[in-house]
Amino acid sequence: MNNNITSLGYTVFFEKELESLQEFINKGNYSQILILVDRNTNDHCLPVLQAALPELVDYDIIEVDPGEENKNIDFCIGVWNTMLDFGADRKALMLNLGGGVVTDMGGFAASTFKRGIDFVQIPTTLLSQVDASVGGKTGIDLGNLKNIIGTFTQPKAVFISSAFLQTLDARQMRSGFAEVIKHGLIFDKDLFEQCKTLDYEEDELDAIVHRSVAIKNEVITQDPTEKGLRKILNFGHTIGHAIEGHSLVTDSNPLLHGEAIAIGMICEAYISHKVNGLSIEALGEIVSLFTSRYERYEFDASIYATLIDLMRNDKKNEQQKLGFALLSAIGTCDYDRFVEEDLIKESLDFYLASAVL
Amino acid sequence: MNNNITSLGYTVFFEKELESLQEFINKGNYSQILILVDRNTNDHCLPVLQAALPELVDYDIIEVDPGEENKNIDFCIGVWNTMLDFGADRKALMLNLGGGVVTDMGGFAASTFKRGIDFVQIPTTLLSQVDASVGGKTGIDLGNLKNIIGTFTQPKAVFISSAFLQTLDARQMRSGFAEVIKHGLIFDKDLFEQCKTLDYEEDELDAIVHRSVAIKNEVITQDPTEKGLRKILNFGHTIGHAIEGHSLVTDSNPLLHGEAIAIGMICEAYISHKVNGLSIEALGEIVSLFTSRYERYEFDASIYATLIDLMRNDKKNEQQKLGFALLSAIGTCDYDRFVEEDLIKESLDFYLASAVL
Repeated sequence: MNNNITSLGYTVFFEKELESLQEFINKGNYSQILILVDRNTNDHCLPVLQAALPELVDYDIIEVDPGEENKNIDFCIGVWNTMLDFGADRKALMLNLGGGVVTDMGGFAASTFKRGIDFVQIPTTLLSQVDASVGGKTGIDLGNLKNIIGTFTQPKAVFISSAFLQTLDARQMRSGFAEVIKHGLIFDKDLFEQCKTLDYEEDELDAIVHRSVAIKNEVITQDPTEKGLRKILNFGHTIGHAIEGHSLVTDSNPLLHGEAIAIGMICEAYISHKVNGLSIEALGEIVSLFTSRYERYEFDASIYATLIDLMRNDKKNEQQKLGFALLSAIGTCDYDRFVEEDLIKESLDFYLASAVL
Repeated sequence: MNNNITSLGYTVFFEKELESLQEFINKGNYSQILILVDRNTNDHCLPVLQAALPELVDYDIIEVDPGEENKNIDFCIGVWNTMLDFGADRKALMLNLGGGVVTDMGGFAASTFKRGIDFVQIPTTLLSQVDASVGGKTGIDLGNLKNIIGTFTQPKAVFISSAFLQTLDARQMRSGFAEVIKHGLIFDKDLFEQCKTLDYEEDELDAIVHRSVAIKNEVITQDPTEKGLRKILNFGHTIGHAIEGHSLVTDSNPLLHGEAIAIGMICEAYISHKVNGLSIEALGEIVSLFTSRYERYEFDASIYATLIDLMRNDKKNEQQKLGFALLSAIGTCDYDRFVEEDLIKESLDFYLASAVL
């Protein structure tokens, strides 16, 4: 069964063995193939790619260090310089093989190199498969501000293979799973229900990844540059990104993106209950799912001011007001809801209390 | 007379007092106005802008150092960080008031900040008025490679005022004038003839700037992302950019862009004569105009290998062949002409000889 998804001018292929990739490359008449990997995907995922490309004998590998803390301008300059060292011209193709760091930064590097070369995203983590594979967002962090520099540039194709998920540890799976739950919360109550019982069995996982990408694609094709509807994808992210940014600079073993977003979703579900009509029962269901699957993260009220400062630089804000996407029910989300600082702090208090329920 | 030019989705206003700028800003409902200047435009051009904007009481100034050597990623990071410090959100507007460094780097910073905010180009040098005001190219240098990182992003408007040209010294005027001559050479024999006698008198200059922008606009609207025709705008730039890049890292008082391009045009006119049918008489006319107006630049054959290396990273190359735009007559230019190294070296020899004719 061909269950590919058509996004903004390109195809998302769901293929365990990347069966169509060789043909895609042959059609493109590219001068050169660059493959961006990190240390992990170089070891565990590159062999799958090489097996899928029997005709590709000549290519250049660019390796970056794994970890969100390396998705920064310094590494990006390193990628640009390596592309120059390899003599890449405007007809080169970049294959980004990795998690969000590789696909976000690789997409940004490609979209700005000689004013833009073609790139293909091959996300290898659950998180990047369900979150970064459609939408055309590229980006890097600056200091502790996430994805603050970037472009909207569509890849030429996306390849999603369940083979790569076998290489992930439980913590990485949980991180990606948070975005799946989010897609259920903002758009599809059935998906949310499924999430309650998921045990990462392969067939079930395939279906959930596909449904997640389909939901995100439905949202972003209606609003490619985030003027309106697309903002619902940011549910949990206003507070979650701040917590993630804070953790990146203070923790020796920082939170993964999904772990931070899970905390953000608890807080923002609380705010949704307080000001956007989300019922107390729905709030209870949401808190219960997250606290059963995610470990408690320790912090206290002394960091609230820092978190609020980080939120002030969130891309969704306007005129200095803090913008949120808020649920009105499980499966339904609104956007451009502006929230007072006191309620944000209250929601952080709620997280700290709820996590020990 | 309204002689505005319509480009790719925006208007180029030719207005000495920037008469329409206030109305443009009012219509945009922007959260904030950022003005990017360099030290020179802060002193000499900002007062003109302020006089044109009587209703604008609140704005933030970002100042960068003038000079092509500062159009790099480090300064760009400084601009991004200053935008963050000023709390700029996605509805901020950036006014880039300056020469090519300010418009290229400001355009790049704006097009990548929070994945893109609106910007307006207000070029203040002859060079940036005739070269950078249409086309949507943004960019920064990396090392000694010019504009190697950038995007194609259209501004929301461009304002060209002859008032700013009064602030320029003779050397800056000559630098910009090289691009005017280029527009004549590649597209309009009449403009080339006019250039022979131009003495920078204001009315005549106005007409020549307008004609130059109109020519460039005609080319770029047919080929916004430089897949074909647009490459003719690069006449003189393959060799000129290499000489400019070399000068930037070796000379204490580096060549200005137009000065380097003038050298590049002599060399590439020679190559045009050798392999693209440009007559010996036309070559003579071209050499004569440039040598009468531009000083000889000293170098010798020991730097040829360095220059060729720099050309190898030119954005117009494909498959390691060096790509040129070449004249077949004055007013007519071809593109995608690939040239051997030996002929390039011969053309540099020709420059060194011609300059003492």
